[in-house]
Amino acid sequence: MGSAYERLLVEVKRLGCLREVLELLTWDLEVGMPIGAEQARADQNETISHLAHELLVSPHLRQLLEEAEREAAPELGSEDKDPYSLQRPEIRAHLLRRVRREIEKNTRVPSQVASQLTAAAAKAQSVWLKARQAKDFGLFQEALERVVELCRQQAECIGYQGHIYDALLDIYEPGMSTAQVDKLFSQLRPRLVDLVKRIAKAPAPSKKVLERSYPVSVQRNFCQRLMIDMGYDWTRGRVDDVVHPFCASFSTSDVRVTNHFREDCVTKALFTALHETGHALYEQGSPAAWLHTPLEGGASMAVHESQSRLWENIVGRSRPFWEHYYPIFQAYYPAQTAGIGVEEFYKAINSVQPSFIRIEADEVTYSLHIMLRFELEKALIEGSLEVKDLPAAWNEAMRDYLGVVPPDDGQGCLQDVHWPSALFGYFPTYALGNLIGAQTWQVMGRDLDLDSLLRQGELGKLRQWLESRLYRWGQRLYPQELLQEVLGQELSAQPFIDYLEAKYAPLYNL
Amino acid sequence: MGSAYERLLVEVKRLGCLREVLELLTWDLEVGMPIGAEQARADQNETISHLAHELLVSPHLRQLLEEAEREAAPELGSEDKDPYSLQRPEIRAHLLRRVRREIEKNTRVPSQVASQLTAAAAKAQSVWLKARQAKDFGLFQEALERVVELCRQQAECIGYQGHIYDALLDIYEPGMSTAQVDKLFSQLRPRLVDLVKRIAKAPAPSKKVLERSYPVSVQRNFCQRLMIDMGYDWTRGRVDDVVHPFCASFSTSDVRVTNHFREDCVTKALFTALHETGHALYEQGSPAAWLHTPLEGGASMAVHESQSRLWENIVGRSRPFWEHYYPIFQAYYPAQTAGIGVEEFYKAINSVQPSFIRIEADEVTYSLHIMLRFELEKALIEGSLEVKDLPAAWNEAMRDYLGVVPPDDGQGCLQDVHWPSALFGYFPTYALGNLIGAQTWQVMGRDLDLDSLLRQGELGKLRQWLESRLYRWGQRLYPQELLQEVLGQELSAQPFIDYLEAKYAPLYNL
Repeated sequence: MGSAYERLLVEVKRLGCLREVLELLTWDLEVGMPIGAEQARADQNETISHLAHELLVSPHLRQLLEEAEREAAPELGSEDKDPYSLQRPEIRAHLLRRVRREIEKNTRVPSQVASQLTAAAAKAQSVWLKARQAKDFGLFQEALERVVELCRQQAECIGYQGHIYDALLDIYEPGMSTAQVDKLFSQLRPRLVDLVKRIAKAPAPSKKVLERSYPVSVQRNFCQRLMIDMGYDWTRGRVDDVVHPFCASFSTSDVRVTNHFREDCVTKALFTALHETGHALYEQGSPAAWLHTPLEGGASMAVHESQSRLWENIVGRSRPFWEHYYPIFQAYYPAQTAGIGVEEFYKAINSVQPSFIRIEADEVTYSLHIMLRFELEKALIEGSLEVKDLPAAWNEAMRDYLGVVPPDDGQGCLQDVHWPSALFGYFPTYALGNLIGAQTWQVMGRDLDLDSLLRQGELGKLRQWLESRLYRWGQRLYPQELLQEVLGQELSAQPFIDYLEAKYAPLYNL
Repeated sequence: MGSAYERLLVEVKRLGCLREVLELLTWDLEVGMPIGAEQARADQNETISHLAHELLVSPHLRQLLEEAEREAAPELGSEDKDPYSLQRPEIRAHLLRRVRREIEKNTRVPSQVASQLTAAAAKAQSVWLKARQAKDFGLFQEALERVVELCRQQAECIGYQGHIYDALLDIYEPGMSTAQVDKLFSQLRPRLVDLVKRIAKAPAPSKKVLERSYPVSVQRNFCQRLMIDMGYDWTRGRVDDVVHPFCASFSTSDVRVTNHFREDCVTKALFTALHETGHALYEQGSPAAWLHTPLEGGASMAVHESQSRLWENIVGRSRPFWEHYYPIFQAYYPAQTAGIGVEEFYKAINSVQPSFIRIEADEVTYSLHIMLRFELEKALIEGSLEVKDLPAAWNEAMRDYLGVVPPDDGQGCLQDVHWPSALFGYFPTYALGNLIGAQTWQVMGRDLDLDSLLRQGELGKLRQWLESRLYRWGQRLYPQELLQEVLGQELSAQPFIDYLEAKYAPLYNL
């Protein structure tokens, strides 16, 4: 029968396979499932989720875990020379820790609360779609109240030491506390608000090069070229068209990028390719020896987002990157770029403009959208803000942070799917990703001459650094351990603030 | 908790969902899975198969079944007016019968034998690939001996009343016996051998129209048009490119066709589209009320094949069909068809020519390829033929049936994947499908003026008849019950013999 650890691995890998299958079901749904299959697909999802949950909370798995925890790690055999072998004591310990975390997270919430939350979220999503279309928050209020109430219950079941919101935040960002986020965001917020104000006073750059028409077939080729240069492994992935792009991973050996090409908006697919390939490189860089285990993949939502945003913004909107790629871009699109130099193009793709919609926001204003959501959802969960007062609070924060107020709730507090989906605790990870990305870039800059590599189009060198330093850790470490181990730093807002100042002050002649 | 029947339905639908997911994993593998994901996909498959098997053979399911069998069917409520409601006593009885059959089939074979067979087949497939490439049966002999031995063990476990081969045949063709197949094939064989001989003496038709180059993009449009005319429901399906086409069904609401387009062979994708859409219409025609249950889908392999072959051959290679479609075909391909009339085209696509390879065989010789395999695999299973004597027996039968002998085993007994895959009992269903297709066509002809409908391109009228008479039964009835109920006939070779004579005698001036 083998050791308890070996038997645990069998079950854990089975659980991993079920999650990969769930991810495939979702990928297929977005990429090309016929519309008539909605109900059947929901049933298939429900079946696999049910089996995965049953496996995760089974007494058998807990018993195996406890036995494995008590068991002494065996002597390494000659076949375990692999530095990533699951038999290595330190890797074994990290795996057991991850499994324990997952079991506890999932057993603490009684199945009654979990299924009430699932049902409430399903209801809220359907109501939200109608409310957003009608631009009427009133239609959504009651459903959201129910979701908030159940998320509070969920948080109480999970437990927390400081703030009730900690329990939810920890689902997406292991080990992160509300107090830490508060501290980081309170450093970042005034600097961003100030930068946005200064930029608003400067003349806006011309964006006419981006307003031209770019044939989709040429865009496909250009994006593919960027992905090749970045080092995306095509034997372990593919690219498909969808409406809302994402990166899906069904193990490190099958990491699929999706994209959305628009003839009237060349930047859409271009920066999506960089962003989603950033996620994909992180997934593909996970050690193959950890197939189907919880050590595979990225450390957290924020660390994952740091990788996508590093490629999309820090690399993909930088001047040295376009010094290399703009002549190539011009060769792909001679008519559209005629008479436009690299400087004008660089300024166009870095235009900063406060707007209502988060997903259309630029690199500077984006984090302010997130901080606003974090403040509001924290207040909802702790009970200091009532759901009925959300639209007013939203608009007030928009005025304070960005200086604009949405004309209606559709472009305001109804714009995101996260709250109707009961994903409280998720939003801050987007902004934390910006911070971690800038920290990573700063540390990379000690080893590599980044500007020079970008000017030569040597994107593969960047990926190699990230792979050998960051990707190879998979999910072994929790995010803050990872930062300490890999970057030798604590999480800080300063590198991101410095990066934005250094980039935008000259760009806008501030 | 509801009745035992209700609780059984929950488990049975869960099982159905797992099988649909398995089918999706296979579809994805063939359609576009990156090559590096092979191992991960095998693990995912193994996990889902394992859970499906565990569910099927669980004492809990058997107990629910037995309780449901004892339970009186409840009075029908007003919501059960639906003629396809799973609450109707007769439908309930058919469902329970199917579930019992599945449980018994799967519990009778001990898991040790089943896993030995799986392992032996995996080994045999890998050895077979090398043997076929080397055209050397000797390399494959030992692996096949092991598979045959285990298939015999499997048959003994399943049990049978007459011939040992019955146990295997019944897996694919419920209720069919070896004696019945012997009888049908012994009627058919001499008539086919005779027809092939007479055709061989007649002048061969010109096939030059088929030797021209046909752009793939135009082929796609033409095939799509045929599928639209047949009534394929695009809200419940899609078409993708693969190397070896098939039809995959993940419930009646998601039935996907695949195809393979070759510029140098216009008939490949054309007849594949008709064939696979024939399968797809049958699946899509299954009552929606039976979603995820074993009543969904087609009655058996042979009945399924009857539907694909009816559309591919009886419809798609008929003169009245091309009287309508050839002018359209010419409009799609004016250069390729210049100077070629419908008669010449009709003769070209119906050229009969004994060949070595089953999957390239025409409508007349195809069933002879199958009969040969049936004779040989029956002899292997009953022990009257030793594996080492297979190549000689194969070549002798080829000479007798088709008058040709393959130059090597690669084009002989190594050509099919079925035996290395341990699919003994499967082959006869292909030829039985031809018989059932011709019988169905004969009965359709009593209600519809088939030639006239084909001449008008009214393919939808054919589908409607099939849907209202055949498809709507799903898997409720076993094949022979279905033929009796729907066609009012027993399975017979005569309609197929009559069909071939009536078609090929004038075509070849015999």
